[in-house]
Amino acid sequence: MLAIRCRLPINSSRIVSAAGVITRKEQKRHASLTMETLNPLVKEVEYAVRGPIVIRAGEIEKKLKGSHNFPFDRVIRANIGDCHASGNQVPITYIRQFVAGCTYPELMKSSNFPSDIKSRVERLLSVCGGKSLGAYTESQGIITIREDIAAYIQQRDGYPSDPNNIYLCNGASDGIKTIIKLLMNNNLEKPSGIMIPVPQYPLYSATLSEYGAYQIEYYLDEGNNWALNIDELERALNQSKDRCVPRGMVIINPGNPTGQVLSRDNIENVIRFAHKHQLFIVADEVYQENVHLPGSKFFSFKKTLMDLGAPYNQMEMASFHSASKGWHGECGSRGGYYELINIDKDVRVQVNKLISACLCSTAWGQAVMAAIINPPKEGEPSYELYKQERSAVVNRLREKAELVGRLFNSVEGVQCNPVMGAMYAFPRIELPKKAIEHAKSKNMAPDAFYCFQLLEKTGICVVPGSGFKQSPGTHHFRTTILPPVDQMKDMVEKFRTFHLSFLREWK
Amino acid sequence: MLAIRCRLPINSSRIVSAAGVITRKEQKRHASLTMETLNPLVKEVEYAVRGPIVIRAGEIEKKLKGSHNFPFDRVIRANIGDCHASGNQVPITYIRQFVAGCTYPELMKSSNFPSDIKSRVERLLSVCGGKSLGAYTESQGIITIREDIAAYIQQRDGYPSDPNNIYLCNGASDGIKTIIKLLMNNNLEKPSGIMIPVPQYPLYSATLSEYGAYQIEYYLDEGNNWALNIDELERALNQSKDRCVPRGMVIINPGNPTGQVLSRDNIENVIRFAHKHQLFIVADEVYQENVHLPGSKFFSFKKTLMDLGAPYNQMEMASFHSASKGWHGECGSRGGYYELINIDKDVRVQVNKLISACLCSTAWGQAVMAAIINPPKEGEPSYELYKQERSAVVNRLREKAELVGRLFNSVEGVQCNPVMGAMYAFPRIELPKKAIEHAKSKNMAPDAFYCFQLLEKTGICVVPGSGFKQSPGTHHFRTTILPPVDQMKDMVEKFRTFHLSFLREWK
Repeated sequence: MLAIRCRLPINSSRIVSAAGVITRKEQKRHASLTMETLNPLVKEVEYAVRGPIVIRAGEIEKKLKGSHNFPFDRVIRANIGDCHASGNQVPITYIRQFVAGCTYPELMKSSNFPSDIKSRVERLLSVCGGKSLGAYTESQGIITIREDIAAYIQQRDGYPSDPNNIYLCNGASDGIKTIIKLLMNNNLEKPSGIMIPVPQYPLYSATLSEYGAYQIEYYLDEGNNWALNIDELERALNQSKDRCVPRGMVIINPGNPTGQVLSRDNIENVIRFAHKHQLFIVADEVYQENVHLPGSKFFSFKKTLMDLGAPYNQMEMASFHSASKGWHGECGSRGGYYELINIDKDVRVQVNKLISACLCSTAWGQAVMAAIINPPKEGEPSYELYKQERSAVVNRLREKAELVGRLFNSVEGVQCNPVMGAMYAFPRIELPKKAIEHAKSKNMAPDAFYCFQLLEKTGICVVPGSGFKQSPGTHHFRTTILPPVDQMKDMVEKFRTFHLSFLREWK
Repeated sequence: MLAIRCRLPINSSRIVSAAGVITRKEQKRHASLTMETLNPLVKEVEYAVRGPIVIRAGEIEKKLKGSHNFPFDRVIRANIGDCHASGNQVPITYIRQFVAGCTYPELMKSSNFPSDIKSRVERLLSVCGGKSLGAYTESQGIITIREDIAAYIQQRDGYPSDPNNIYLCNGASDGIKTIIKLLMNNNLEKPSGIMIPVPQYPLYSATLSEYGAYQIEYYLDEGNNWALNIDELERALNQSKDRCVPRGMVIINPGNPTGQVLSRDNIENVIRFAHKHQLFIVADEVYQENVHLPGSKFFSFKKTLMDLGAPYNQMEMASFHSASKGWHGECGSRGGYYELINIDKDVRVQVNKLISACLCSTAWGQAVMAAIINPPKEGEPSYELYKQERSAVVNRLREKAELVGRLFNSVEGVQCNPVMGAMYAFPRIELPKKAIEHAKSKNMAPDAFYCFQLLEKTGICVVPGSGFKQSPGTHHFRTTILPPVDQMKDMVEKFRTFHLSFLREWK
């Protein structure tokens, strides 16, 4: 039997020394699962978007229902990109009619259902087992939907896309975890390393912690609209090499939490960098439909890689999309997909085997994704209403993206890059030295302390920059741009008052 | 920095020696993900229910659409417990009306929707963000649904159930993987060990392979209706102790693939065994509503553990249920839940943190689970139709459970325990020595060879016993009892003819 030495990521050492030496006899009572015996990698996981500040917001909301002493009457939830929950966005009629029809086909007998919805429902159910969404789908997802997704990608990029390379999953998160899993190897001397942006979406750090991988952090260039700087990528990779075996690189474009849209030129240089270092590209492109700033344009990594020609057009990558984002915001459906590009065919067989153990992703989420990716066409009965609903949402998002950046920049000690895409602003805040020291004495990140104060005093719930990681010594928070325009304006005014009083208090 | 020795499960050594010595320079072309660099644990995963034989069945189905030489015109898919896909079972009206209403609340304006459905839809949407299933739910699932599940469990067992201990998930598979993850510790000298039944549902072996855990296999007693034998449990555990740190024990009741329903007495003894060895109980009870044989009764592990009193009633366990099984069979929804019982409160915080990184399970799957767990009550407008549809399905399943056992036992060289519960028969087949030797020379499990021949010659698709593991030297296959009665009879007759000719051929 082989015994292999494996090393843990450095930041695990605290847990290791705790868990490694505890024997089962030391456990309290006759318990089989305690903090001492719990998987030490699980303890390492952190996820700020639903972290302590959000839990506290929930508690406050409960208290607001009774008599209370808070100087506000509602919590403004700007912590999560959840369109339907955040105020004034209702579901798109076409999507819901289609999914309701797939759920209960009897409805198709009603004359209230447009004929194009009926034929779409029939088309989808005709390839479902027993013509029911209640049957397991193929592990990769329903073939008709994969064909539609491939057509969408082909239309977007001008390059072929094969339905056999499309994988439906339970939200992009599920797919991202699957792909990162492929890149792990805990049998080697050093852990597998994955490059992640800082600031990043905390699913990445959480997943890498859970897998015992090494997080190779590269800093986004805040002074240059959060672009990727190639020298910085080289530095990050170089410094990691004695601590891990670098395997892949995550890019989030449009950015979360940072809201930038990468230039074509920047993407090309990133691809060249990944090629030079033989890194698998994990392209998180779930905000591809959320581009607000005039002059900004989304370029997919796949198209750019193909445009670059050999040898780049043979590089392996995965690109993710989600039903939760875009302008329709069907988060609860957990619809999502990824496309595998240039994957070794034997590896593909392994991916299919791996995902088949959980049988398939939710058929209802697949149906929502199907509706999103293949909307009504001009001339079809559902088109006009669809177009009208879409314009309303898209225009509001564009208006708020511009508004939020402008308003935050009008507050003393706050700097906010333009919200080019996605659904977030990530303003930088200058905190007084005394406040920083006080927070540290309480064992809190300074911006977490700040955000807790903001919540307690105004009801505004945002996520501290420390939850996404950030350049040392800087402080930020992430806010969504989703609340209605009036609320957003009100929110920034409340924020302004709070911020100035905070500066006075800790001067 | 600490370096910890970790050992792999013995059956990984082949992969380790392969993957451990390969350097990145040896890889073909400039690839970042090849069979050599793929996560070696992923390569270890096997999942027979969607394995090579099922892939072949799909290929044959495609060929049957054109001109072909197969001596049959359709594939009988008896490989997977997929009610809607397997022939004559249509979705339950009440469930689909409820989910369609939640999807597109405009429908509630129609007089065609029963008033109880309308009030159920309103009740659920009133606690969803923006009154939409499109909002993210709480990480554990929508509170109203968790309350209904807790009420269902309390009604079933006569013991309190707390909605805070209920976790909605994407099918039971997702929840099972989460719970097993908690029990892993790859920092220790020996891998974590989990006891699994043999035969087992291959999700367990697949998950343990993926996690690098040790599979402590205990044999079910085929001669005693697949009961658990305590001496056998002791043997299995004892023999594993120098290879792993035993942490938990999986019990599948009613059994998959074996179809038994455990006696109350057997469950009590299993609980005593788990207590003695401080094992976390993973109770896979997804077939709790599928009990067919007169005289059989489902006893939950939770109730039995509570009935036993101290110290057993303080043991930690998780119990799983699913929307896919029961008699409604809404597999595509990926609805499921687990109850955590007697879990340390700090561990619970860790579980909530871990699951929050993927935000929530599918809201549509949650809605389906809600409908299943809280059906119409007598006197409500939907009740009569619901009752009628339920009886039809339940009676057919009962009839087929009895029929299938009887028919298989009428075939020479085939022995089949009664199908007490779940939706499978797992007959044992005596294979001629020459056939066994031939299969081995082809590097195939003998029953896999047999099942491939069965598929090619009759179109019947079942899963070889080797895919579930089985006692050495025995051979089985798993068939569902889901095809319509006529098809099941036809299937067994085709099987009889095939089996006798197979015996003649390899005599």
